[in-house]
Amino acid sequence: MMLLMLYLIAITAEAMTGALSAGRRGMDWFGVVLIACVTALGGGSVRDVLLGHYPLTWVKHPEYLVLTSVAALVTIFIAPLMRRLRSLFLALDAVGLVAFTLIGCMTALEMGHGMLVASVSGVITGVFGGILRDIFCNDIPLIFRRELYASVSFLAAWFYLLCLYLQLPGEQAIMLTLFSGFLLRLLAIRFHWEMPKFIYNDDVH
Amino acid sequence: MMLLMLYLIAITAEAMTGALSAGRRGMDWFGVVLIACVTALGGGSVRDVLLGHYPLTWVKHPEYLVLTSVAALVTIFIAPLMRRLRSLFLALDAVGLVAFTLIGCMTALEMGHGMLVASVSGVITGVFGGILRDIFCNDIPLIFRRELYASVSFLAAWFYLLCLYLQLPGEQAIMLTLFSGFLLRLLAIRFHWEMPKFIYNDDVH
Amino acid sequence: MMLLMLYLIAITAEAMTGALSAGRRGMDWFGVVLIACVTALGGGSVRDVLLGHYPLTWVKHPEYLVLTSVAALVTIFIAPLMRRLRSLFLALDAVGLVAFTLIGCMTALEMGHGMLVASVSGVITGVFGGILRDIFCNDIPLIFRRELYASVSFLAAWFYLLCLYLQLPGEQAIMLTLFSGFLLRLLAIRFHWEMPKFIYNDDVH
Repeated sequence: MMLLMLYLIAITAEAMTGALSAGRRGMDWFGVVLIACVTALGGGSVRDVLLGHYPLTWVKHPEYLVLTSVAALVTIFIAPLMRRLRSLFLALDAVGLVAFTLIGCMTALEMGHGMLVASVSGVITGVFGGILRDIFCNDIPLIFRRELYASVSFLAAWFYLLCLYLQLPGEQAIMLTLFSGFLLRLLAIRFHWEMPKFIYNDDVH
Repeated sequence: MMLLMLYLIAITAEAMTGALSAGRRGMDWFGVVLIACVTALGGGSVRDVLLGHYPLTWVKHPEYLVLTSVAALVTIFIAPLMRRLRSLFLALDAVGLVAFTLIGCMTALEMGHGMLVASVSGVITGVFGGILRDIFCNDIPLIFRRELYASVSFLAAWFYLLCLYLQLPGEQAIMLTLFSGFLLRLLAIRFHWEMPKFIYNDDVH
Repeated sequence: MMLLMLYLIAITAEAMTGALSAGRRGMDWFGVVLIACVTALGGGSVRDVLLGHYPLTWVKHPEYLVLTSVAALVTIFIAPLMRRLRSLFLALDAVGLVAFTLIGCMTALEMGHGMLVASVSGVITGVFGGILRDIFCNDIPLIFRRELYASVSFLAAWFYLLCLYLQLPGEQAIMLTLFSGFLLRLLAIRFHWEMPKFIYNDDVH
């Protein structure tokens, strides 16, 4: 199934972004592997724990842990190449974001939850890996400051749910969501689209 | 039931404090909504996950997510008014703290746990939303530095359990706990009561 | 059973390291107790939540919460002595690390998981208490920067699994793992063995 392929690409790409974050903090190799696994598999794990959906993906398929660990170790050695591959990376990350979101929506729907919970499940799967990465590296989560990222996940989730509501066949709904979510993310990067920010300062009286 | 009313007021007030925290960090609207939801519903979620109490509140009642999200968005627009409403806010927050604590205790007792676990469940429900908010915003959790806050939750939990132990009717136990917990928190704010601090510095030899 | 004895020593020692961390941040007594409990019992809790292994240890044995809380409060009063007991502490912490790892492996094996998941479960139990402590105190988790720590947990887990695979009796496997893991950690401290670090800086173009 194509979605599995995309999922594997996505966790590999996410593991690599996690490894680079760990490298920015000068962590040792073990830390690099741990941050990579948390980034790649953390979103799905948070979703599964919150929904009570056991066993977790990596418990059922521990080979995914091997994949993300290897991706992290490879990243250490090819890091100098990373800067040149920056565009490729952003594209893979965009695919990953939408694929994660779709999987999160489907998981919740399969468990019998409604559309609102399904959309939240999609967004959690899409963005929590990155949030956990930033918390572990002691940063303010990036997603709250970057170009449309969480919003792409949110819109992709609702677009997919709308497709299902309109009775589109599952495969078509997935393809359409992947394509339009991917496009939206790339456009957001290209044109620096951002959500409006809320700046509040109550120290001044 | 009155406790449900208080719960709804509490999650609204907590969502607004979360939104203000996100605003202090200049997050975008999506981050504001996420931090608001985590602040309002995070304490109960941590409790439910730790006790294995599924489904979580917001999964069963996704409309609470809508309520907290709307509260967050409203906060963005009325933020300039917030400073004037500061006292009202502290009062609502105090009600919320005690209401959350009560709900946490009851949840554990209904699951058949003993008083020790019930009190911990109450405190987790009362204070973890704020702890998660501060972790997401990359602050040292406030509750460890403020006037009696977690302690009010702790004392309210044991006061309630004592009432039950003394065979008071449930309604009365709830009312008494709400009133005395609320009063204690207001007195703590008014007179700057604080727990003693533990200052340890082992860098100096 | 000896492992229970070691477990109790381990959670006491970990609670004390947690209390000292909280003291470094000048937290109040309540924060000290909370950080101590999270440090001592957090690793096992994260493991149990991820594996869906309910009830959690401290829910089943709330007396452990009392033990760690008392240990935290005692720490406040004997903190000035701590510097002299530094070596004893590092030794107890090393015992704890290996004991936690063993318990994590056994828990996963008893649930019927394979060796890969068992080793991950061991490492999570061994190191996540410390990671949570550092996140709550707003530090970059120490374990990614210190001498072999997480690596000792990892090697101990696989050493134990290897012993089982070689059909050694359970008791012997435990003793051998405890001894060699403890020795490895002490040697790592003594000779400042470290994992290689991954330093990545992409801000310079």
